[in-house]
Amino acid sequence: MSTLGFIEYENASPQVRAVYDDIMTTRKIDHVTNFWKAIAHDLTTLKSTWEATKKIMAAGALDPLTKELIYVAVSASNLCEYCIAAHTAGARKKGMTNEMFHEMMSVVGLASANNRLVAGYQVEVDEEYKTGGKS
Amino acid sequence: MSTLGFIEYENASPQVRAVYDDIMTTRKIDHVTNFWKAIAHDLTTLKSTWEATKKIMAAGALDPLTKELIYVAVSASNLCEYCIAAHTAGARKKGMTNEMFHEMMSVVGLASANNRLVAGYQVEVDEEYKTGGKS
Amino acid sequence: MSTLGFIEYENASPQVRAVYDDIMTTRKIDHVTNFWKAIAHDLTTLKSTWEATKKIMAAGALDPLTKELIYVAVSASNLCEYCIAAHTAGARKKGMTNEMFHEMMSVVGLASANNRLVAGYQVEVDEEYKTGGKS
Amino acid sequence: MSTLGFIEYENASPQVRAVYDDIMTTRKIDHVTNFWKAIAHDLTTLKSTWEATKKIMAAGALDPLTKELIYVAVSASNLCEYCIAAHTAGARKKGMTNEMFHEMMSVVGLASANNRLVAGYQVEVDEEYKTGGKS
Amino acid sequence: MSTLGFIEYENASPQVRAVYDDIMTTRKIDHVTNFWKAIAHDLTTLKSTWEATKKIMAAGALDPLTKELIYVAVSASNLCEYCIAAHTAGARKKGMTNEMFHEMMSVVGLASANNRLVAGYQVEVDEEYKTGGKS
Amino acid sequence: MSTLGFIEYENASPQVRAVYDDIMTTRKIDHVTNFWKAIAHDLTTLKSTWEATKKIMAAGALDPLTKELIYVAVSASNLCEYCIAAHTAGARKKGMTNEMFHEMMSVVGLASANNRLVAGYQVEVDEEYKTGGKS
Repeated sequence: MSTLGFIEYENASPQVRAVYDDIMTTRKIDHVTNFWKAIAHDLTTLKSTWEATKKIMAAGALDPLTKELIYVAVSASNLCEYCIAAHTAGARKKGMTNEMFHEMMSVVGLASANNRLVAGYQVEVDEEYKTGGKS
Repeated sequence: MSTLGFIEYENASPQVRAVYDDIMTTRKIDHVTNFWKAIAHDLTTLKSTWEATKKIMAAGALDPLTKELIYVAVSASNLCEYCIAAHTAGARKKGMTNEMFHEMMSVVGLASANNRLVAGYQVEVDEEYKTGGKS
Repeated sequence: MSTLGFIEYENASPQVRAVYDDIMTTRKIDHVTNFWKAIAHDLTTLKSTWEATKKIMAAGALDPLTKELIYVAVSASNLCEYCIAAHTAGARKKGMTNEMFHEMMSVVGLASANNRLVAGYQVEVDEEYKTGGKS
Repeated sequence: MSTLGFIEYENASPQVRAVYDDIMTTRKIDHVTNFWKAIAHDLTTLKSTWEATKKIMAAGALDPLTKELIYVAVSASNLCEYCIAAHTAGARKKGMTNEMFHEMMSVVGLASANNRLVAGYQVEVDEEYKTGGKS
Repeated sequence: MSTLGFIEYENASPQVRAVYDDIMTTRKIDHVTNFWKAIAHDLTTLKSTWEATKKIMAAGALDPLTKELIYVAVSASNLCEYCIAAHTAGARKKGMTNEMFHEMMSVVGLASANNRLVAGYQVEVDEEYKTGGKS
Repeated sequence: MSTLGFIEYENASPQVRAVYDDIMTTRKIDHVTNFWKAIAHDLTTLKSTWEATKKIMAAGALDPLTKELIYVAVSASNLCEYCIAAHTAGARKKGMTNEMFHEMMSVVGLASANNRLVAGYQVEVDEEYKTGGKS
C-alpha cells in the first residue's frame, strides 16, 4: 500500500485536479490510476512526470504502440510489477495483440540472457562498432 | 578482452564454421563479430544462442526494426556496453533514424525513472489491472 | 512468506536472543522485525549483518538520516519492496519529512534515467574525470 | 565513444548553445561535459534533461551535497561508470570529504547485500510497515 | 495474477500437452506449475524455454544441485520472487540443506556489495586478469 | 582509474599492511590486487570486506569452487567487469574447467531470461511454494 496514501480527486488541490483532468482528457478515461494518486503528494513530481509521460509517449518518429512495447520491455527488465501491469494494459488499448506481446517478451528474454553472456565471456566491443560518426 | 579468446573462422571446427556460415548468410555480412567468436568455445551455447537469436529477431507480429529497438532498450536498461553498440548498429541497418533512436531512449529513461517512483512510493496495482482473463 | 519461517524470541537460542536484545536496545523498540527473524536461521549471517548495519548506519561523517536516505534510494533503485517499506519508516523516525522524501525520490528517478541515457548514447568519460589522485 | 559523436559549442545551434550557456553559468564552469554534448543531438532530450537536473539537484528540503551523494549511490548501484565519475567529482566540489565518500559507499554496499538477503529469504513486509496514512 | 491466465492441462492443445507431459515425466511431478501454464499461451516460448531449461539444468560438468544454487543466486540478485520460491524448492528436492542455502545467500550478499564497491571506487581491472589466452 | 588512487604496500599504514599480509598469506599470492588497494583508503571497509570475504568464501557446507561460481554468476548478472575478471581467475585457480564455466554461464543466461518472462507474464507464486515450514 502506498506510503503516503492516495490523493483522490475530491480531496485534491486545484493544481492537482488540473493535472488529473489533463490525464483523463488525454487518455479518454474517467479516473486516474494509483500511480498518479500516489505521487500527487508532490505537485512538482506529479506535474513533471505527467508532462514528460505525455510528451514522450505521444506519436512521433515512433508510433505510440511501439513506445508502449518499449516501456513494458524496460519494466519487465526491471521486474516492476506495477509498471508491467499498467503498461501491458496500455499497450493492449493501443492495439497490442497476444502475438506481439509474446514476441516482445521473447526479445526481452533473449537480450537479458545475451547481456549476461557478453559480460561473463568478457567480450570486447568490435572495432566496427566504435566508429560511429564521432566529431 | 575475452576470457577465452576468440575462435576465428580459420581455427574453427566444422560445426562452429557451420554456425558462422549461417550467421554470415542470414545477416549478409562477411565475418562474424566478437560475441559469436567468444561463445564459440561452447558449441552448445553458440548453436542455441544463434538459433534463438535468428528465430526471435526475425519478422513476425513485430517487424525486425521494432525488435531491434526493444533489444537496445533492454540493453540500455542493463547498461550493457557491447550489446548497445552492436544492436544500435543493427537497428541502423534496419532503418532506425536518429529521431527514432532519440525517442526510444526517451522512453527508456522515462520507464527507468517511473519504475523507481512506483517502487519508492510503494504504489499498489490498481484493481482494473488485475482482471485480465485469468482462467 | 519467509522460506524458513521466522525465529521468534521465545524460540530463539541464547546467541540469537543476544543479537535480538542488542537490536531492540540500539533501536529503542520492543520487538525485532521480520528481516532479523528470517535470517536468524543462520546465526553467522544474523550476527554479521546486524554488526555491519549497526556500525555503518551510525552517525559518522554522515548523519544517520542521510544514511537512511541513501539506503532507501538504493532500495528503490533495486525495487526492493521490503527494504523500501522498512527504511522509509526508519528514515521518518530519524526526521525525514515528506518534502525530503519527495526530493530524494526525484534524485533517484533522475539518476535512474540519466544512467541509461549515458549508456544508450555511449558517452565516454571526460578526461577531467579521470585524473583523481591516482598513485 | 559516443554513438553520434559530440556536438561542440562552435558547431551547436542557437538553441543548443542557450542550454550550454545555462549549464556553464549555473555550474560556474567554462565548458560542458560529454554527457550534454552527446544528448544534444536531440534538443528535446537536452532541454528536458537539463531542466530536470537543474531543478532537482538544487537546494530544497535536502541540500545539494546530500542530493549528489544520493545520485552517486544510485549510479554505483547501477554500476554506471560515467555517472559515478562525473557525480563523484560533483560531490567533491560541493564539499564531500573522503570520509563521507567512504561512508556513503558503505551504505550502498550494505543495502545492496541486504536487498538480496530479503529477497532470498523471502521476507514478507511487517504489518507495522503497511499502515502509513493510506486514504 | 497472470496477464493471460493459465492454460490448464484439460484445456491445452495436443502440442502444449506434449510439453506438459515431458515436464511432468522429467521432474517426476503430477502437474505443471504456474510459470509453464502462463507462458503456454505462446507455444514457441513454451517449447524453447522448456527445452533450454531441461538441457541446461541437467547434469554435466556441474551437478544439478550446483546449477539450482546458481539459478537461485541469480534470481535473488534480480529480486525475482517467483523464481526464488520455485528454484529454492527445486534446490531442496535436489539435496540443498539449510546450511548450503545460508552459505549461498552469503555469497550473493557479498558479491552484491562488492560489485558496487568496485564500481563506486572505480577500480580498474588488474593487468594479470587481462591476459587469459586470447587468440 | 580508481577515484582515490591505490595504496601500495610500501605506502600503507601498519594496519593496512596487516590486512594485505593476511590476504597474501590466505591466498598464497605475493601482492594484493587493485580492489583491495582501492578500498584501503577506508580502513574500516578494507578490514570488514576482507574479513567477510575470507569467512564467506572459505570451505563450509559448500566447497570454495562452488562459492566462486556463485560469485561469478552474480557478478555476470550485474555486468560487473572487474568482479567477473577477478573471480573467473579465482575460480580457475580452484579448479573450474572451461566446461564448468560454460555451464555456469548457461544457467546465468537462462535464469536472466526466465526472471523476465515470469515478470512480464505476471506469474503468481504457486500455493505449493508458499508453505515452507513457516513457524
